Amino acid sequence: MKKTASSETSGKVPTPHLPYQTQRTYNRTDVLLKILNHYQAMPHLQCIIIVWNNPGQPPPKELWDSLGPHPVPVIFKEQSVNRMRNRLQPHPEIKTDAVLMLDDDTLVSVPDISFAFSVWKQFLDQIVGFVPRKHVTTTSGVYSYGSFELQDPDKGGGDWYSMILVGAAFFHQRFLQLFQDQPSEVHHLVDETQNCDDIAMNFVVARQLARMSGHNRPSGVFVKPVDMRNLEKEARSGYVGMWHRAEHMLQRSYCLNKLAQIYRGMPLRYSNMMISQYGFPSYANHKSRI
Amino acid sequence: MKKTASSETSGKVPTPHLPYQTQRTYNRTDVLLKILNHYQAMPHLQCIIIVWNNPGQPPPKELWDSLGPHPVPVIFKEQSVNRMRNRLQPHPEIKTDAVLMLDDDTLVSVPDISFAFSVWKQFLDQIVGFVPRKHVTTTSGVYSYGSFELQDPDKGGGDWYSMILVGAAFFHQRFLQLFQDQPSEVHHLVDETQNCDDIAMNFVVARQLARMSGHNRPSGVFVKPVDMRNLEKEARSGYVGMWHRAEHMLQRSYCLNKLAQIYRGMPLRYSNMMISQYGFPSYANHKSRI
Repeated sequence: MKKTASSETSGKVPTPHLPYQTQRTYNRTDVLLKILNHYQAMPHLQCIIIVWNNPGQPPPKELWDSLGPHPVPVIFKEQSVNRMRNRLQPHPEIKTDAVLMLDDDTLVSVPDISFAFSVWKQFLDQIVGFVPRKHVTTTSGVYSYGSFELQDPDKGGGDWYSMILVGAAFFHQRFLQLFQDQPSEVHHLVDETQNCDDIAMNFVVARQLARMSGHNRPSGVFVKPVDMRNLEKEARSGYVGMWHRAEHMLQRSYCLNKLAQIYRGMPLRYSNMMISQYGFPSYANHKSRI
Repeated sequence: MKKTASSETSGKVPTPHLPYQTQRTYNRTDVLLKILNHYQAMPHLQCIIIVWNNPGQPPPKELWDSLGPHPVPVIFKEQSVNRMRNRLQPHPEIKTDAVLMLDDDTLVSVPDISFAFSVWKQFLDQIVGFVPRKHVTTTSGVYSYGSFELQDPDKGGGDWYSMILVGAAFFHQRFLQLFQDQPSEVHHLVDETQNCDDIAMNFVVARQLARMSGHNRPSGVFVKPVDMRNLEKEARSGYVGMWHRAEHMLQRSYCLNKLAQIYRGMPLRYSNMMISQYGFPSYANHKSRI
C-alpha cells in the first residue's frame, strides 16, 4: 500500500517552522522564548526553523545560545523583506518529509503534536492540522470565508470544513516547493494582503489531489486538539494580533474569490471527519454516552 | 488514488446483516421488529438480510409482510444449524461492496451509520465500526482480551485498540469469502465456542493487510458513536444476553490465544485513532476547550 509504504519514509521526524512576524504593537521576544522552550521538549523533533520577519532587527540568537545547551538546534532565518509567504520557502535545512508549521503565538501541547504526527503518516498527501475553516457559497455566487459560526442547519446534521490552516499543521515538505511553483498572481495576492498564504496552500493541495486521483478530496484532515493556546490572547496585554482584526477576515473572503478567479474554479472540497486520540485525555472520551 | 477510486465503486449502498440468534431465554421477535422498523429509515440502504438461527422455528415473515409496504426489502435466511458463523456467509443477495453487520440487539442511530459509511469509503480494506476492543500481552506471554478497563497508564497518554467488532461495523463484502477460505481449525473454534467470529475476522483482515502492504496496519478503524443502544439492556427484563456472561469473556481470551496458535503469530496491531463527525451533535464538539 502506497499509504503505509511512504509513511515509513516519513516516519522520521518533523521540522517545525515558527514564523516570527512583525506587524505587532509590542515586543514579542518573550513569546518567542516561551514557545521555543516549549517545543524543545517535543519527541521526534529534529530542528526548529524561525523565519525571522524583522528586517533590521537582529534575532535573539545570542540570548538563546547563552541559555543553552538546548536539545534541538534552532536556526534563525533572517529575511530581508517582511513577507507573509516567507514561511512557505523550501528551506534547505528541512531534511524530513514532515514539516510542522506553527504561528509564532500558537502553543500546542506535546500529546496533540505527537498524535497529529502519527495521523499525518496516514494522510501524507493532505494537510493534517488543528484549525479547520470553510468557504461558503452565497446565493450571489460570491464565496465567503468563515468557521463553525457559519454552520448551516439545512445541510443536515453536523458541520463541514474545506481548509486546514497551515499555522498549526503537519504537511509534506514537497508542498513548499509546490507553492513556489504557483502563478505569480498567487504570490502577489499574498504579498498585497500580507494574508491568505494558508488559504492559497489549501487551494494548491486540493488541486494537486484532484490531479493525482482524478477525484476531488479535501485538502486537509482535522485533528481535534486537546490543548492549544494563543499566547497573545493569554497575555491579555492590549491584544491586537492581526488574526483578530475585522479587516483580516474580510481580506480572507477577498482572497477566496481572487484565488477561485486565478485558478478558474473552486478546488476546495468539504470534509466532516474529525480525528481525536482514543482514550485521551480520559478513558471516557470514547464512550458513546458520557 | 486507489483509495478514492474504489470509494466510488463502493459508494453504492450497504447491505446490513441483522443476525438473529437463539441462546436467549425469552422471545425476541419484539426486538427484531423494533430493529427492522428502525433500519428501514436508513439512507442508501439496499437490502436487509436476517440470518435466522432458529432451526425449526419459522421467522416472522408473514407478520412483517402484513405490516407492509416497507421501503427496504427484508430477506430471512433460515439456517438449518444454529451457528455463530452463519452470519459470515457470502450470501448471494449481497450486491454491494459495503456490508453493514449488526448484532440482533444493537440499535445504532441513522446519523452514526451514515457517517460511518462515509468514513468506510476512505478505509476500504479495514473494518470500520463502533465497538473497539484490544488484546493485552501479559508477562506470561498469554494474551488477554478486554476493553478500555485495561488501559495501561505506562503506555503513555491515551488508550489503544486492536480489534473492531463486526457486530456493529461496515466492511467490504469480500471479507466474507475471505473468512470462508480460512483453515478449518478457525471455523471449528467459532463453532466450538459459539463465539469469537468477530475476533477471527480481525485476525483475517490484519493478516490480509500485512500481505497487501508488507506492512502491519490495524484491522479496524473506530468511529465514535453518538447514539448506540442495546435493546436487551434497555428492556431490563431478566437480561441474560450472551455478551454479558462471564464465561463469554473468558472464551474470548481463549480464542485470542488459540487463533495466535493456529496462525503461528499475533497479526493484530494497535491503533489510537478515533473518528467522529465534525460539529455533530453540537457545533461545540470540536472546540479545543469546551
